[in-house]
Amino acid sequence: MAFNHAKLLKQPIKALLLDISGVLKDGDIPVQGSLEAVRTLQSMGFPFRLITNETLKPKSTIRNTLQMLGYEVNEQDMQCPVPFLKEILIKENLRPHLLLHPRMFAEFEGIDLSNPNCVVMGDAEEYFHYDSLNECFRKLIAMKNPILFSLGINKYYLDDDGLSMDVGAYCKGIEYATGVKARIVGKPSKEYFLRAVNKLGFKPEEVVMIGDDIEYDVGGAQECGLRGVLVKTGKFRPSDELHPKIKPDAIVENLQQFVEMYIKAQDTKQLQGVSA
Amino acid sequence: MAFNHAKLLKQPIKALLLDISGVLKDGDIPVQGSLEAVRTLQSMGFPFRLITNETLKPKSTIRNTLQMLGYEVNEQDMQCPVPFLKEILIKENLRPHLLLHPRMFAEFEGIDLSNPNCVVMGDAEEYFHYDSLNECFRKLIAMKNPILFSLGINKYYLDDDGLSMDVGAYCKGIEYATGVKARIVGKPSKEYFLRAVNKLGFKPEEVVMIGDDIEYDVGGAQECGLRGVLVKTGKFRPSDELHPKIKPDAIVENLQQFVEMYIKAQDTKQLQGVSA
Repeated sequence: MAFNHAKLLKQPIKALLLDISGVLKDGDIPVQGSLEAVRTLQSMGFPFRLITNETLKPKSTIRNTLQMLGYEVNEQDMQCPVPFLKEILIKENLRPHLLLHPRMFAEFEGIDLSNPNCVVMGDAEEYFHYDSLNECFRKLIAMKNPILFSLGINKYYLDDDGLSMDVGAYCKGIEYATGVKARIVGKPSKEYFLRAVNKLGFKPEEVVMIGDDIEYDVGGAQECGLRGVLVKTGKFRPSDELHPKIKPDAIVENLQQFVEMYIKAQDTKQLQGVSA
Repeated sequence: MAFNHAKLLKQPIKALLLDISGVLKDGDIPVQGSLEAVRTLQSMGFPFRLITNETLKPKSTIRNTLQMLGYEVNEQDMQCPVPFLKEILIKENLRPHLLLHPRMFAEFEGIDLSNPNCVVMGDAEEYFHYDSLNECFRKLIAMKNPILFSLGINKYYLDDDGLSMDVGAYCKGIEYATGVKARIVGKPSKEYFLRAVNKLGFKPEEVVMIGDDIEYDVGGAQECGLRGVLVKTGKFRPSDELHPKIKPDAIVENLQQFVEMYIKAQDTKQLQGVSA
């Protein structure tokens, strides 16, 4: 455990961005201590927002799962890639070909899916296969101005039976074969982080991102001027602590430890304030 | 058509390396003029060798197909990735996990496939899917010293119903997710080209490679000191002529045109020799 007070607390923390998978829950199981941690934050009136790259389930389903697990959160507290993407598609008059889990198709109601002029990839689990990937490849090489969206670019995530490859791996293959560089909708894209920060009503330097992905939660947030904290839950691997480039502002056992240590640091500060 | 005599004929051509798919045949159909071209080369006693990244079929099957189409070639004239890989596996005491078309498994007779300490990927068509790719990913991240072989790193090839993604796309995804850089067995690896040149008994600068892959046939050969000629058959796309980095020593309609123009150039030279 490395809780670098000096670095993390160099300035006040006014709000948090919390990853969902690996921080609040693993599959349908709450991460140890996270229910208590979120309740503590809520009882303190401490602002936070949930920010996820999850594209296997609609936002409403993720909210339902979280509520079922005991988290009192609602959709307005959450940021997911698909609604964000829909805004882009509408604004830029784009008609997507979708490589997504079929349960996500209903989320695209109102979007023209005929005669596609872009390709959208999200995590698709067993729907990633030779034919579906080839279809994306062929559509892209036939487009005059090919546009490829990837909902996140994560390398892997923690599945029920171990780590599994995420959309990033499949997207990199399509990028390689087509020569088309994907536009990322989700972490670590700057506009995605900054949207969440704006919704909270704070400046990037006032916000701390807490996630289990050293590169795209922690590194991505740091790139945007936030502080980034790595939890040792979810897909965390010991080698993450030795990442050659990304140095988290803190590494904690889990979200609960972060919240406890933050409160302790605040108490100490207050005591120092009283004694000064 | 761009047949840059000056560049291509700056020094004598003593032997040829010929790609199979896209140059001699597309699927089970001979490329127009190639049967005649190969017969002409054979009747001239002009040395050539077939060099392919094909891993969907055993060498013996490829030879049978070529013979059925009318090419009088035998296995000694051909270089395929799998036999080359087998030499490496034996030499380095490696036990592969195979992501290949199942019809290739018999080619690994005599190779220990238990408790794998490396992963081998080749074109697998519909056997590229979520579970098979995830299996490679999981085996690699569990290895202390992960080794990944890719049989070629091609982006796409011409299938019966259009262009299809090749092993390179899937390999790049695995590389991205695992952080392991693949060792390429096949074109454009230097040792693969130089093996073929050595078997011909010439120096790289005396040999011309003829292929339909601008990057891995033409560019790869040029990197090894050979000259590289692009045919406009197989997976050739008009954009290949505008490749920002790779400039073929010649671009020809097909193999037959190359052979005819080569013979014409030789005749002209001889005539010039006579008149001088």
